[in-house]
Amino acid sequence: MTRVFNFSAGPAALPEPVLQQAAQEMLDWHGSGMSVMEMSHRGPQFMAIMEEALQRFRALLNVPSNYQVLFMQGGALGENAIVPMNMLRGRASVDYIDTGEWSKKSIAEARKYATVNVAASGADNGYTRIPARETWALDPDAAYVHICSNETIGGLEYPEAPDVGNVPLVADMSSSIMSRPVPVERYGLIYGGAQKNIGPAGLTLVIVRDDLLGGALPITPTAFNYRVVADNGSMYNTPPTYAIYIAGLVFKWLQDQGGLPGIAARNAEKAALLYGTLDRSALERGGLFTTQVAREHRSRMNVTFQLRDEALTAPFLAGAEARGMVQLKGHRAVGGVRASLYNAMPLAGVQALVSYMAEFETRHG
Amino acid sequence: MTRVFNFSAGPAALPEPVLQQAAQEMLDWHGSGMSVMEMSHRGPQFMAIMEEALQRFRALLNVPSNYQVLFMQGGALGENAIVPMNMLRGRASVDYIDTGEWSKKSIAEARKYATVNVAASGADNGYTRIPARETWALDPDAAYVHICSNETIGGLEYPEAPDVGNVPLVADMSSSIMSRPVPVERYGLIYGGAQKNIGPAGLTLVIVRDDLLGGALPITPTAFNYRVVADNGSMYNTPPTYAIYIAGLVFKWLQDQGGLPGIAARNAEKAALLYGTLDRSALERGGLFTTQVAREHRSRMNVTFQLRDEALTAPFLAGAEARGMVQLKGHRAVGGVRASLYNAMPLAGVQALVSYMAEFETRHG
Repeated sequence: MTRVFNFSAGPAALPEPVLQQAAQEMLDWHGSGMSVMEMSHRGPQFMAIMEEALQRFRALLNVPSNYQVLFMQGGALGENAIVPMNMLRGRASVDYIDTGEWSKKSIAEARKYATVNVAASGADNGYTRIPARETWALDPDAAYVHICSNETIGGLEYPEAPDVGNVPLVADMSSSIMSRPVPVERYGLIYGGAQKNIGPAGLTLVIVRDDLLGGALPITPTAFNYRVVADNGSMYNTPPTYAIYIAGLVFKWLQDQGGLPGIAARNAEKAALLYGTLDRSALERGGLFTTQVAREHRSRMNVTFQLRDEALTAPFLAGAEARGMVQLKGHRAVGGVRASLYNAMPLAGVQALVSYMAEFETRHG
Repeated sequence: MTRVFNFSAGPAALPEPVLQQAAQEMLDWHGSGMSVMEMSHRGPQFMAIMEEALQRFRALLNVPSNYQVLFMQGGALGENAIVPMNMLRGRASVDYIDTGEWSKKSIAEARKYATVNVAASGADNGYTRIPARETWALDPDAAYVHICSNETIGGLEYPEAPDVGNVPLVADMSSSIMSRPVPVERYGLIYGGAQKNIGPAGLTLVIVRDDLLGGALPITPTAFNYRVVADNGSMYNTPPTYAIYIAGLVFKWLQDQGGLPGIAARNAEKAALLYGTLDRSALERGGLFTTQVAREHRSRMNVTFQLRDEALTAPFLAGAEARGMVQLKGHRAVGGVRASLYNAMPLAGVQALVSYMAEFETRHG
């Protein structure tokens, strides 16, 4: 068995020790005689698995006690509807910041349920930077302000939580959650699909402040009503049990890595290595590789770059694959190359990539 | 490792060969160097896995070409809202048949979106039989007629698809789908959670006739709009990839069992053995074990029964567990005992159960 370096933007690489443990426990979890997949979600074994995953998640992110953590289904695209359904709380309008493909999807969906004010947009700069905070035209009566913390497709990321005053800040953190510490108390709601840094696709994480619950639209499906999900300990409907089990193993692995400060340091190191290579390419090698994203908004999770001659993209990707580096192709909406450096990507994977880039430059530079 | 006989109502037992293959492939699927959990849903490996699962499912159920098969999220409780959102098609009212706990949940949720006519109810008979078809007060202008094909909690099941004329028949088949052949062409829509006979919790299957698509309410979340899901090959949002992979392995296992006719014969044999034991108990042993469900509506999947002296229920369950037969406790809403005999429960498990019942009768009879 040879494991590859998997740069997929999601579903994405998982820590090898997690997969090993899952394989070992597949037919018999801890002497129960059952796979975790086979357990009743209300049985004592799975209840313990779920509670442990929940507590590890809360501990890692330092979630304050006045926030609920919900395990849901439907992914971030589902949440694009579920958020306004739950979070309008009698108000009519919402503020959204447009920073790229995922923001645009969130905005389009929210328009079904509310008056959407696009308070700032990066469209003018081709989504290469996050609009400066002082340019945001926020409405103090908005039900919430929505941001996408990390744009997986464009490859740009908020360096920190923006200050939006007393209006609750809502963040799609699908592709950055658990990659570094987050001041949860500065957000009203955080949501994300699990399939980047947490576990298998099909699990959605929601962190929501208690006082924002209870104001859902009457048309909200009960299974997606945060108040109901919270009151039922994320078991109003059968939760995605196996995905929660894997997430729990990932959380344990994260704690073994020194928690979020530990993994954040590694993520910074990986991103610095790759962006440094791109910058040197631009300065010293005539820019065979270039990235468009403003330096202060470069994503640590999804590094997007282009080859000077677009015809070189396909051979570059083929050569990477031949060297065991896969899923590096840029999203079909933007093209080019995208290296996703989530938590489970080891430094060795990035070292292999920059080494190959140097080789490729020498050949084509 | 000792595997138990797992009688859970869901999530439930899976075929051991499926779990063995999943364990073996966990770190490296077919030489890809990746776990299926780590694959991009749009990559060639997962696309092949998904297509194969879909084709096996269609072949097993003999799904006509004018029906879409959708892989979704949210479970049957999610579908309780998603069905009326999608299926009203400009009409105002819907017919529901009330046969127990799951029907009642479906009815309560549908009232958010439509005028619900409960065309027949088993409440009067304590949900021990399905109301006779000739008593149903159907509305010819209803958008659809909704039934729950198998009530997991009460343990009663429709022996066949009822005739409802030209109004589309919609069925929650969560706990009976794939347990025997179904005349799909007699239904407008079939839905079900995967966690009984198909695979891990978190995957929802929908089979819907083409001509019923396209009339969703404007408030329908895009991720749950059947038309959108169908047009995107169940990849509008990231599907629950690992659950789909496991489902595909289960479908292959089902084909190896002689398909749905083959598994239906085994299921009938298992159910006959357990119901025969209950009937003999009533006739010959003074009824230590009894079941309330009308003979013609007895579920083949969930056999519910009570002990004559309720104080014997706990010792009966404890003795079963000591003998490696687990998750036999009845649902908290009804109590007693429930033995779920889904596809993956071997005949040997039912033989062990009836043997233990005979032993228990001798001791307490």
